[in-house]
Amino acid sequence: MAKLPTNWFVEHVTPDLIQQFSIKDILYSGKTRFQTAEVIDTASYGRCLILDGKIQCSERDEFIYHEALVHPPLITHPNPETVFIAGGGEGATAREVLAHKTVSKAVMVDIDRQVIKLCRRYLPSLSQGSFEDERLELHFGDARNYLAHTQERFDAIIIDLPEPIEEGPAYLLYTEEFYAMLRERLRPQGVISVQSGCAVMGVLLNFIAVNNTLKTVFPRVFPYRAEVPSFGGTWGFALAGEGLDPLALSPAEVERRIAGRISRPLSFYDAETHRGLFSLPKYLRQEMAQENRTIADDRPLFIY
Amino acid sequence: MAKLPTNWFVEHVTPDLIQQFSIKDILYSGKTRFQTAEVIDTASYGRCLILDGKIQCSERDEFIYHEALVHPPLITHPNPETVFIAGGGEGATAREVLAHKTVSKAVMVDIDRQVIKLCRRYLPSLSQGSFEDERLELHFGDARNYLAHTQERFDAIIIDLPEPIEEGPAYLLYTEEFYAMLRERLRPQGVISVQSGCAVMGVLLNFIAVNNTLKTVFPRVFPYRAEVPSFGGTWGFALAGEGLDPLALSPAEVERRIAGRISRPLSFYDAETHRGLFSLPKYLRQEMAQENRTIADDRPLFIY
Amino acid sequence: MAKLPTNWFVEHVTPDLIQQFSIKDILYSGKTRFQTAEVIDTASYGRCLILDGKIQCSERDEFIYHEALVHPPLITHPNPETVFIAGGGEGATAREVLAHKTVSKAVMVDIDRQVIKLCRRYLPSLSQGSFEDERLELHFGDARNYLAHTQERFDAIIIDLPEPIEEGPAYLLYTEEFYAMLRERLRPQGVISVQSGCAVMGVLLNFIAVNNTLKTVFPRVFPYRAEVPSFGGTWGFALAGEGLDPLALSPAEVERRIAGRISRPLSFYDAETHRGLFSLPKYLRQEMAQENRTIADDRPLFIY
Amino acid sequence: MAKLPTNWFVEHVTPDLIQQFSIKDILYSGKTRFQTAEVIDTASYGRCLILDGKIQCSERDEFIYHEALVHPPLITHPNPETVFIAGGGEGATAREVLAHKTVSKAVMVDIDRQVIKLCRRYLPSLSQGSFEDERLELHFGDARNYLAHTQERFDAIIIDLPEPIEEGPAYLLYTEEFYAMLRERLRPQGVISVQSGCAVMGVLLNFIAVNNTLKTVFPRVFPYRAEVPSFGGTWGFALAGEGLDPLALSPAEVERRIAGRISRPLSFYDAETHRGLFSLPKYLRQEMAQENRTIADDRPLFIY
Repeated sequence: MAKLPTNWFVEHVTPDLIQQFSIKDILYSGKTRFQTAEVIDTASYGRCLILDGKIQCSERDEFIYHEALVHPPLITHPNPETVFIAGGGEGATAREVLAHKTVSKAVMVDIDRQVIKLCRRYLPSLSQGSFEDERLELHFGDARNYLAHTQERFDAIIIDLPEPIEEGPAYLLYTEEFYAMLRERLRPQGVISVQSGCAVMGVLLNFIAVNNTLKTVFPRVFPYRAEVPSFGGTWGFALAGEGLDPLALSPAEVERRIAGRISRPLSFYDAETHRGLFSLPKYLRQEMAQENRTIADDRPLFIY
Repeated sequence: MAKLPTNWFVEHVTPDLIQQFSIKDILYSGKTRFQTAEVIDTASYGRCLILDGKIQCSERDEFIYHEALVHPPLITHPNPETVFIAGGGEGATAREVLAHKTVSKAVMVDIDRQVIKLCRRYLPSLSQGSFEDERLELHFGDARNYLAHTQERFDAIIIDLPEPIEEGPAYLLYTEEFYAMLRERLRPQGVISVQSGCAVMGVLLNFIAVNNTLKTVFPRVFPYRAEVPSFGGTWGFALAGEGLDPLALSPAEVERRIAGRISRPLSFYDAETHRGLFSLPKYLRQEMAQENRTIADDRPLFIY
Repeated sequence: MAKLPTNWFVEHVTPDLIQQFSIKDILYSGKTRFQTAEVIDTASYGRCLILDGKIQCSERDEFIYHEALVHPPLITHPNPETVFIAGGGEGATAREVLAHKTVSKAVMVDIDRQVIKLCRRYLPSLSQGSFEDERLELHFGDARNYLAHTQERFDAIIIDLPEPIEEGPAYLLYTEEFYAMLRERLRPQGVISVQSGCAVMGVLLNFIAVNNTLKTVFPRVFPYRAEVPSFGGTWGFALAGEGLDPLALSPAEVERRIAGRISRPLSFYDAETHRGLFSLPKYLRQEMAQENRTIADDRPLFIY
Repeated sequence: MAKLPTNWFVEHVTPDLIQQFSIKDILYSGKTRFQTAEVIDTASYGRCLILDGKIQCSERDEFIYHEALVHPPLITHPNPETVFIAGGGEGATAREVLAHKTVSKAVMVDIDRQVIKLCRRYLPSLSQGSFEDERLELHFGDARNYLAHTQERFDAIIIDLPEPIEEGPAYLLYTEEFYAMLRERLRPQGVISVQSGCAVMGVLLNFIAVNNTLKTVFPRVFPYRAEVPSFGGTWGFALAGEGLDPLALSPAEVERRIAGRISRPLSFYDAETHRGLFSLPKYLRQEMAQENRTIADDRPLFIY
């Protein structure tokens, strides 16, 4: 028995579901202006960033999440030059965006300067120099407020925010008012992707509601999923835009764009993965057809 | 705090990873001749069968596992009439097999009579009358031993066994010797499917080794995956046979076969799901290409 | 690993301290009008009653708690004939009181009729027929309200209430106003005992505050402690009265009173135990001398 | 929910009983030549030393354990000048021994040099300069082997070893052969104390067996207990010797010896505490009278 690990990180995925990772070290534990923050080193997933008790990413499998969030919209777009990133404090979303040679400018707005400092210090593999890339323009503040006061338009917008919890800083960035603002900030043929929370059977409400809400604003919305083990299962995303269809690209075209535009080898994303991302099982498509919850500023959705 | 659930089922997925479900009731807790067995009622997944501390299925999501195990091989086969099931004591694999109108005979061999009794009593939705179906021939015993002493051949063989643990009854049913025996028991165009364990990043060895081992015996092997939330993530399967290719079927043909052959509506499996099952992410295909572990009687694989 | 128990009761003793017992069965889980209630069967302590997530007693060690609560005051009293019990729904406090042959009448007031029913059904060893004893007068309601409307006086009053939690029914029965009411309901030489919560180093506030509050009302107060393992450690009590001193009794006199008055063998309490109960370690006496928190209706104390 | 601690130390007290402390930091985690070793910082108990998964001491309550282990034998002895310490790597047992002005020489033998280094670095309040005290003679090695090869005799011997686990280094230091060796190494009027493990109801075997075994060797044996909260409850000790009786000392004499001999204020031990230590509850005395297990080299006792 002495051989079992003694130290554990405990995450309440839902009130009735817990996941625990054994911990090798606690590198940081404190509070920023906006949230509690921890960096822990785990046996299963390496170093992990925890905000308000929820895992945000792990060294070991963050590539799945960040490649899934960034490449489907950017590859679907014919020539993405300017990209807006809401959140993304770890720097890994910027890393994937800046891997696209077509991108000449990325504007990133994150509210929590201390999280960025923590990640640069304890999780440098996440940003891998993105913060030094001259194409990145970094602002600290509320992304919704930033977008309300700019006239700039973007080829792609990537929404990489923590989940909407009642005490947290992000819940007003999941509403139809916010998505309408995003649409106005897109160039023609513009595309967005949104991390939209847990997409595991039984924990689907946020994922479905984000997709429903996007549909009230955008003509085309494509829900998709990728398994991110440290998040406790399959994670949901949505791709939306003015009309581009990620499934209309042939596998050969996806491979051609990857080869032509992305400056380094990817680990998760290729044409086969692209196809699989958008393939939802029957029960999930049925559940999405039945649930019509949407999110608005005066009807916010809070997850556990 | 008093509002948090107080009673929890704790499963060590790996030595460094735990999942916990809150429990509403413990319906049964005891030992059979072969293993410890429990039936618990959980808030997230309804009633669950636990053998040797490992969850075997839950009322809420067992349809994913059992449809994924049975329909890809039977739909790929042009006309499955006889099916062999190794294990499957819950009766749900038989339920899915017998839903195929083409099937005139299913032979099921499970070692643990008490598990079948437990499931019929506490989890009747699993078998849904399969054990009363005249097409089912049920034997109690070791499936390998049974196959060694029969000359019968089958259109499909479904391997639905608990994972290979050192103290458990199943580890000799994961070896190349056993798979060679399966091949001999197949009719021409015969097909098999094998539940092959956790297929989550970082916990892939069993999944890959089963696929590798099948490749030493069968000309075509197709690994596939489905997310079964109560199992802690994505689960691995393998389809193997004499030459049939599940990916050669057009979506329309899959739908046509489902409509023509299966007597009731499915919840998980359709043409879109079929396509998604076989779509593995890039990192997994790479890892499968690099790992060459196979399993033999004298080189068994034990999972945690 | 499969041999580790899989099902656990989890109690947050404090926000930073958890105790877990392996569960064999869940006999009842529901809500009464006043609180959540569970009866679970544990490997370490047998059947346990859980109210609002907190263990109230276990079959295996309840004798320690109930003998410690009842016998010190009744043995200290020269001839206890009438006893009032506040709370005590399990029936075990009544059982110990009624074991005293001197007692001709015990009045018990508990707010939660359903808890009494649950205990009679699932934990009959607790009451052992007390509810059928003609000397017991049982009322359902709030004990404070009952005492406010009676003129009856008692030789002993036993306070056996759940801990004061913000959502719970008991916190106004821990205040100086309530204790003043108790004093008025005592006969000359009357004595009371109060269960006063966890008395483990670091979790002492409730124990000390109850004792301090009693001192504002009664001329003599005697804190004492007994280890109740299922409660996570040493439990606190207080004995108070008009002047009787439990430490003034010689061991021989304690034994004589036990032999003469109590109708069956005890398991926990005798003269040696009596002496040990009142022997507090130095650090605890020092901490009690320094902490002066008292409890009043408008300054209630809530425990975690 | 985000406000609950996320990081926990989990200790299996028995197979059916777990205690968890929330962790603020992991200061060290590794292996020595003899055992796994960790130093963690907990919210409830401050820094804790963990060996082979079992808590050995915490900053917050180690004073209880170490004062209880050392002062009863040394105060009972009329004039302790030479003391032998088996184990005690934290340096806190030496600290308490060296607080006695009568002690001119203390010989300490601990097997694990790395544990001593760890404690000096991460838990300096434990030794508080003991290792620099010229009266301390420190040896690294097996205490039994050391005693087998010395002719020296001591006024007191303090046994401060980890519990006897099958894989651990200590189980042969709990046997009657070892205790017989101790007796030979005592001067006339010599006295020993032995930490003898958990003494909580239901987990009493080690405590009772150590006492029984001592009785096969020594004319007088006195079991005693103190609550050490971080150990999960009440801890057992035994005092044995050639005839000295700790209970024969009047409270005034205990206070007089403390005042005259001990060079600094104590936190746990005084005359009142001394009396309480030896006061065992009735059920425990009964259980000790019934259980006759003893420990020998060829009949070792392993705890969980």
